Amino acid sequence: MKPVKLTVKGFKAAAVKAGIRGKDRLDLGMIYSEVPAAAAAVFTTSSVKAAPIVLGAEKLKSGHAQALVVNSSIANACTGAQGMELARGVAGLAAKALCISEDLVQVSSTGVIGEQLDLSCFAKNMDRLAGELSEDNFMAVARAMMTTDTVEKIAFRKVEVNGREVRLLGLAKGAGMIMPNMATMLCFVVTDAAVSADLLGRMLKKGVDQSFNVITVDGDTSTNDTVLVMANRLAENSLLTGMDQDGAGVFQKALDGLLKDLALQIVADGEGATKLITVRVNGASNRAAAEQAARTVANSALFKTACFGEDANWGRIIGALGRSGVDFDPERVDIGFDDVLMVREGLGLKENEEQATSVLKQKEFTVTIDLKNGSASSEIYTCDFSLDYVRINADYRT
Amino acid sequence: MKPVKLTVKGFKAAAVKAGIRGKDRLDLGMIYSEVPAAAAAVFTTSSVKAAPIVLGAEKLKSGHAQALVVNSSIANACTGAQGMELARGVAGLAAKALCISEDLVQVSSTGVIGEQLDLSCFAKNMDRLAGELSEDNFMAVARAMMTTDTVEKIAFRKVEVNGREVRLLGLAKGAGMIMPNMATMLCFVVTDAAVSADLLGRMLKKGVDQSFNVITVDGDTSTNDTVLVMANRLAENSLLTGMDQDGAGVFQKALDGLLKDLALQIVADGEGATKLITVRVNGASNRAAAEQAARTVANSALFKTACFGEDANWGRIIGALGRSGVDFDPERVDIGFDDVLMVREGLGLKENEEQATSVLKQKEFTVTIDLKNGSASSEIYTCDFSLDYVRINADYRT
Repeated sequence: MKPVKLTVKGFKAAAVKAGIRGKDRLDLGMIYSEVPAAAAAVFTTSSVKAAPIVLGAEKLKSGHAQALVVNSSIANACTGAQGMELARGVAGLAAKALCISEDLVQVSSTGVIGEQLDLSCFAKNMDRLAGELSEDNFMAVARAMMTTDTVEKIAFRKVEVNGREVRLLGLAKGAGMIMPNMATMLCFVVTDAAVSADLLGRMLKKGVDQSFNVITVDGDTSTNDTVLVMANRLAENSLLTGMDQDGAGVFQKALDGLLKDLALQIVADGEGATKLITVRVNGASNRAAAEQAARTVANSALFKTACFGEDANWGRIIGALGRSGVDFDPERVDIGFDDVLMVREGLGLKENEEQATSVLKQKEFTVTIDLKNGSASSEIYTCDFSLDYVRINADYRT
Repeated sequence: MKPVKLTVKGFKAAAVKAGIRGKDRLDLGMIYSEVPAAAAAVFTTSSVKAAPIVLGAEKLKSGHAQALVVNSSIANACTGAQGMELARGVAGLAAKALCISEDLVQVSSTGVIGEQLDLSCFAKNMDRLAGELSEDNFMAVARAMMTTDTVEKIAFRKVEVNGREVRLLGLAKGAGMIMPNMATMLCFVVTDAAVSADLLGRMLKKGVDQSFNVITVDGDTSTNDTVLVMANRLAENSLLTGMDQDGAGVFQKALDGLLKDLALQIVADGEGATKLITVRVNGASNRAAAEQAARTVANSALFKTACFGEDANWGRIIGALGRSGVDFDPERVDIGFDDVLMVREGLGLKENEEQATSVLKQKEFTVTIDLKNGSASSEIYTCDFSLDYVRINADYRT
């Protein structure tokens, strides 16, 4: 079987070592579409927004973009007027190198908050980036986006929309400061589908709610979170403008799957993570309660350290549920690890502990909590809390 | 100068090794008043309440208590009808050994959730406990309450109320699962003051709000939290029944100071803690916003690991503020470490970084955040997040 080439019609990418913060590593990337693309994004919910976010949101009101420049090492957050000027300068340099309108250039940054970027790092490399653009170079951009990530995160989908082959390619980064409602994560999706900017925005929102908004590494949200999608229409399917159209469902499903795939890659590569854990809450009185209960468990440092210790310490789960503010009867709750029931009607099943411990020794498992207080469910994806999480974060800037 | 003897008129204490969970350590303690005392308590806000909490709250409706039995190692939480029966059994054994009414015996437990206590550990030791009661044996009870604590926590105050010397002695335990709004912590205060149960309850609530409710170790709240105060009137001050009475203010101040002292001892002994950190927020639009902002920073794993790494990484502080939901202008905020200003009007003062780093190398420091959005303030006390926190909590049950 011939491997699928991870390309999307009309999109090219390049990455270089720009020496940002003096580091000898890929730290600057570019994505470019041969034609202007419909574009939409979901940005951080934090009230502290990095300069590129402010600039990018403004530009995206047009519903279009043609290029993206992304750097790692410095986030350009909390950098005031100088930071805004820098972000504009980067867009200007890229526009010039690519001979396109500056309004069509999105800029994105990730890394340390509060330090200023040096425009010369960008100026010296922009022509080279433009010159090295290639259709099968996306992995290099995925690498250039990395901070404490240990692997590149990339996902691909190919679907048929109205008789035309449509491709979606997604890149993501993020390893710490990850929490439902967006977090320090960047995700860029390029597709050759023909979708109106308005519909693209709605589809993206839906996909993000089921992917990046249901993961957590450490409960911290960041200043730079971005999920950006560009659709350049080169697949030549008939333009999708509403969810009721033929093909819209297929495309949404592909987008959802791609985003979920990338989100889970982020959790699995959570800072110091050794396990990917699904916390599923059933039997809640409503969806919000289910999510609140699942999030409280998924963010509990005590639960996460117990997972790292491979200890089926369900008391910490019930402790987190108790403080979650969600209504339930502690004497009715069931808790299981994969298919091993550990708590029935609020009481521990000591005889199942050995089996439950075996589940916790796996790299991936699901904690299922049944509150028996209704029929609503929710899932949150998290990772364990290890010694390496502390090591990484005690040393991050140095 | 002769050292003050840490005694309170009419109160005695004892502790023994009862072999709970098979451990060879002090794990069972008793506090006893020669006469019935006015009593009040603040219990956990968790919806999952351990059996002794349910039983104790019911009994305290009378406003009186005369004895307390406390054990560590097993929390008697999530133990169902069997756990309730055990708690009642313990109270019964103590009542018999002390020849007092069972209604006047409070029971308290701390340790692992979900395991059953063995009544025989209590039965075998209750007469010995009663026999060994002594006025200067409170330190042994403080030791018997410990779980992952590394030191006993004890505080003492002596004040004059209406011409009579009044003494207050407090014991506390708690090291993890510590979070504002009570946490896995127990605190018992005995005083010979004459205070009505009703006023004692109000005074305690006020004191707890300024002490145990403004500390956090790991953002987790527990099933067993208790702050119990007993006042046996043997100081013979004229009975305090209202805050407007002479002497009430003096007593409240002494109680507040005692509780704060114990709360800070808990944070300083936070699991794995190497630093005691005060997070002070000024300039908030209202008190609730100030507290919300301070708590979000104080609970941020990224902030706490940076403190452990002695890294003046103010970006993580501003990141936490951004997601706190509190209204402020990121371009006006000031942040300082002790008296070193690190952020002015949202921008980092690189030139002060070396000095700020020196502050972080101290065992204790204050982070001061000025939101410049009003005049309300709040302080939360926290500790850093170290490798030992993970080690302790990955191994706790084993």
